[in-house]
Amino acid sequence: MTYCVGILLKDGLVVLADTRTNAGVDNIAVFRKLHVISKPGERVIALSSAGNLSHAQTVVSLLNEGLENPATGKVETLQAVDSMFHAAQLVGRVVRHVYETDGEAMEKQNGRFDVSFLLGGQIKDGRLRLFMVYAAGNFIEASLETPFLQIGEHKYGKPILDRAISYDMDLYDALKIGLISVDSTLRSNLAVGLPLDMVVIRRDTKEAELIYRVDAGDSYFNDLRTRWSEALRATHLGIPRPPYKTK
Amino acid sequence: MTYCVGILLKDGLVVLADTRTNAGVDNIAVFRKLHVISKPGERVIALSSAGNLSHAQTVVSLLNEGLENPATGKVETLQAVDSMFHAAQLVGRVVRHVYETDGEAMEKQNGRFDVSFLLGGQIKDGRLRLFMVYAAGNFIEASLETPFLQIGEHKYGKPILDRAISYDMDLYDALKIGLISVDSTLRSNLAVGLPLDMVVIRRDTKEAELIYRVDAGDSYFNDLRTRWSEALRATHLGIPRPPYKTK
Repeated sequence: MTYCVGILLKDGLVVLADTRTNAGVDNIAVFRKLHVISKPGERVIALSSAGNLSHAQTVVSLLNEGLENPATGKVETLQAVDSMFHAAQLVGRVVRHVYETDGEAMEKQNGRFDVSFLLGGQIKDGRLRLFMVYAAGNFIEASLETPFLQIGEHKYGKPILDRAISYDMDLYDALKIGLISVDSTLRSNLAVGLPLDMVVIRRDTKEAELIYRVDAGDSYFNDLRTRWSEALRATHLGIPRPPYKTK
Repeated sequence: MTYCVGILLKDGLVVLADTRTNAGVDNIAVFRKLHVISKPGERVIALSSAGNLSHAQTVVSLLNEGLENPATGKVETLQAVDSMFHAAQLVGRVVRHVYETDGEAMEKQNGRFDVSFLLGGQIKDGRLRLFMVYAAGNFIEASLETPFLQIGEHKYGKPILDRAISYDMDLYDALKIGLISVDSTLRSNLAVGLPLDMVVIRRDTKEAELIYRVDAGDSYFNDLRTRWSEALRATHLGIPRPPYKTK
């Protein structure tokens, strides 16, 4: 399992991803699921994956190695693609390519072809954009009304995003809300685990302002978890008991 | 969709259920999904359902009408069964009976046989118990370590239960936590909706202490939702921004 969230704001983009993978509860490992492709001033792209690790890794390798675009005959990579929309199309094509090579064999053994990606960033004169690419290679884009997208184990951490994220908020406030969202997920699903990778990209800089990994000893994150937990407790204790009586 | 939660405590049992059903977003209706069977002083049973409404209703009808136990040749009902364990077995048998009559036809039309139940209560000299019955008719029981069970859309509302529910807490504090859990679910999934039905059963009384329905105009629930929302907001605003810098 995995939990990744991308938040697209007026000032930029925040992406957070955990690093736990599991093939059953007796096979748990740490893998980086958040990748940053950067040529400062020209492009910055954050790519995070959820789902089957082998398919996700194959997609990432092919995005680096390049895949021929049948419409143009040119080999495309995330390092060279000329816009974020074309980058999303490229990720979709690579996902379909991997499905064509691996999908049938998976399904014969009752496996599902299950992989998804968050792709955010800015290229050249284009806008900063955030996409979610599905296992079928199709994709959606974050908007002002729905500025965040999630992949993987998304439900536990969604209520706080629904309540707190707004397009106008500060980038580091959004990073903080993202960390609270991850905290809820960590508590409720053992298949999501530390360390956490994160990237902050400020709009129009075309470089990563922050690339950071939070591990178990991170004092800020531990303080945030404690404060959140204690405040929730104080809040529910402060609400009076239901006064209901059978009518 | 549905959200139901049952909480088994030292002092008794709390069960909460929403009432929304939907067959697509253009077909939304209110149905009672929480049923109370009571003969005060002798038995009190709360039964709530999630999943396919037609199968859930058929199960409830058969539990009232009775189903023959092949081991004894006797027709059993929830009104007459002699223990909570036998009640859980009866619900399981009825679920399997409905699967035998409806399951194949559902699957032929690519439908899933998808129904589950929370069954809690106390009969005669037996203990107060809480079970969750699956679509295959098997069941699990709540324990001191895991005093709550959920069916339906359970993930949005689970973090607060994980944090706040303990076996020793007051029944009406647990009802309050249950309402907060439902609130998170209502905000994140449109297929869960008001009104909410709830029952509180105090241990060893063998009757329902509270049977109540919360609708959209309920002032306590609206106040709880406002307080919770404002406190979450104040809490995340009060946590400092992440001090992280790229290493």
